[in-house]
Amino acid sequence: MVYNKRMSSRAYNFNPGPCGLPDAVMERAQAEFLSYRGEQASVMEISHRGAAFMEAYRRAVGLLRELMDIGDDYAVLLVAGGATGQAAAIPLNLLADENQCAAYLITGHWSKRAADEGAKYCRMHVAADTADNNYTALPVQLQIPEDAAYLHYADNETIHGVEFPAPPATAVPLIADMSSNILSRHINVDDYGLIYAGAQKNMGPTGITVAIVRKSLVQTRRQTPMIWDYRQQMDNDSMINTPPTFPIYMMGLVLEWMRGEGGVAEMSRRADEKAALLYGCIDRSDFYNNPAVNGCRSRMNVPFFIADDKLTGDFLSGAQQNGMIGLKGHAVLGGCRASLYNAMPVAGVRCLVEYMRDFEKRHG
Amino acid sequence: MVYNKRMSSRAYNFNPGPCGLPDAVMERAQAEFLSYRGEQASVMEISHRGAAFMEAYRRAVGLLRELMDIGDDYAVLLVAGGATGQAAAIPLNLLADENQCAAYLITGHWSKRAADEGAKYCRMHVAADTADNNYTALPVQLQIPEDAAYLHYADNETIHGVEFPAPPATAVPLIADMSSNILSRHINVDDYGLIYAGAQKNMGPTGITVAIVRKSLVQTRRQTPMIWDYRQQMDNDSMINTPPTFPIYMMGLVLEWMRGEGGVAEMSRRADEKAALLYGCIDRSDFYNNPAVNGCRSRMNVPFFIADDKLTGDFLSGAQQNGMIGLKGHAVLGGCRASLYNAMPVAGVRCLVEYMRDFEKRHG
Repeated sequence: MVYNKRMSSRAYNFNPGPCGLPDAVMERAQAEFLSYRGEQASVMEISHRGAAFMEAYRRAVGLLRELMDIGDDYAVLLVAGGATGQAAAIPLNLLADENQCAAYLITGHWSKRAADEGAKYCRMHVAADTADNNYTALPVQLQIPEDAAYLHYADNETIHGVEFPAPPATAVPLIADMSSNILSRHINVDDYGLIYAGAQKNMGPTGITVAIVRKSLVQTRRQTPMIWDYRQQMDNDSMINTPPTFPIYMMGLVLEWMRGEGGVAEMSRRADEKAALLYGCIDRSDFYNNPAVNGCRSRMNVPFFIADDKLTGDFLSGAQQNGMIGLKGHAVLGGCRASLYNAMPVAGVRCLVEYMRDFEKRHG
Repeated sequence: MVYNKRMSSRAYNFNPGPCGLPDAVMERAQAEFLSYRGEQASVMEISHRGAAFMEAYRRAVGLLRELMDIGDDYAVLLVAGGATGQAAAIPLNLLADENQCAAYLITGHWSKRAADEGAKYCRMHVAADTADNNYTALPVQLQIPEDAAYLHYADNETIHGVEFPAPPATAVPLIADMSSNILSRHINVDDYGLIYAGAQKNMGPTGITVAIVRKSLVQTRRQTPMIWDYRQQMDNDSMINTPPTFPIYMMGLVLEWMRGEGGVAEMSRRADEKAALLYGCIDRSDFYNNPAVNGCRSRMNVPFFIADDKLTGDFLSGAQQNGMIGLKGHAVLGGCRASLYNAMPVAGVRCLVEYMRDFEKRHG
């Protein structure tokens, strides 16, 4: 039986990031790979300061501003080093020195890493930590010191599969790691002091990270590495040094595709539909299970486990044979995980669910 | 008259970085762009921890070790943030605290930037500064304090076009920025404490930086950002977080191409031939000139000026019409610049020289 009816050389790609990109984007990038729009060279072989690349850069940033409705009081920076890099850059840009206090919410692997990294550069206060429930639920009560410069949290935990249904309530500026759920639903950017996201889930390939920064929050701090100095990067189109040009170009193509498909509203509708399909399949029996508490289940990353763990290997290899890849769980949790980013079509999730049901019938 | 006899959609690319990559590499990457070697996904869409990408990563690092004959006492790290990122990372990894002394040689724009950035993280000592001669010559005498932990210098200055014919003599560990001349001639890695280079000149597209580090020099320092923590990156195959996978893959292809062409020995022979052709053309009359002092002229980056600067615009647009791009000089110096990295064929330089001679005849 063939589940992936496309029969293409490209599988349905459930990888958590790097992850699948839209076929249309990949085909366009391939077509202009050797010679970019009259430049007589690939987009990765031309000057980052020349007119052709600057146009690609401005288009990518402009599309992001349009899709997220980002106001002029926010800078949109494209920087290197991933979200882990930003975990250092944020306190180095928003706090004048290491004696200032910042609050961190710990709800899984990535927010824990951001807190550990942030602690190098601030007086760190843990506002809540859900380790006691194995990061399957979100905190109810937060303790935020009055002198905290900000509250940092991860809007979606890629490994543990928990997602905030709404931003946490706080009186201090809110800093959100949205690496794995940016552009998957409407948010009000004005609710945040800073939003950051590695591109390699909902926006493009790996190599570039977006930071959307309320300009008035940026401090000067001598120890900030130049490439992460928000003020310098703001004043230099994020080109203090040679940026990762190909990832920026790809991000522009992905955002263009997203707008053509109906923008964030349509991505959000599809995300809800995909998540409902997959959680519905998991919940209909005890064969599969997902540990996250209802109400904070991620629409983007769904870790799931087969009750009889010995079947996991067969499940994964069968999926691959049927044109579905990237379903292996993260080493931290084991089991399986399906990532349902914007580029994943609803048909891909239908294909997965059909396979899961048949697998259950054969082994249940 | 057509100077670029290839008549292809790809020009001879003299860009300083991002720069041209070998046609054979680009064609191969295009061919497997949508579906990478049985993975049913692009190389940029697969897990960086999966077997297929790990193989590409190990091949790239292995080829670099082979081409440069790098011993086991050196780690080869692939990191994000460019050479400017490493300008911060180096003192943060090689000095235990900011009171330790490090010496910097300033011979142009990029070594000046490295010194300015390094000064944030160490007690900085300028061992020599050739600003007085506009960075057209290299220093004769160096002053290196006995307690300096290292001497940092730029082996080749991409903007000012000066290159060290041999590494500076010093009793302290030598740190070399080889961004623009790595793999262009034989060097003895054991002469260096650390060599680093952005990939986007001789090794691949932008987005990845190589650091070749003598392991015994690495210190622990709390303020080092995790993504630049050499020890952590050594222990984690440079994958503390999701690396820029596509640039790493491309770097592997470029290094494979280089080995196939004859390795560093052949790149060095071609570099000498290309530089001799171009400097020969510049020096044969007063129409063109290059300001660098003989003996330290760069084989990789040749800034040159037309005596009558009003002709520069015509020169550049004529070159472009004849299939030669990227010849505009850096904003710091103006004029023209030809970058002759490994991917530039000798035929490309012959084409440029022929054009330059004809241009001189028409306007001289």
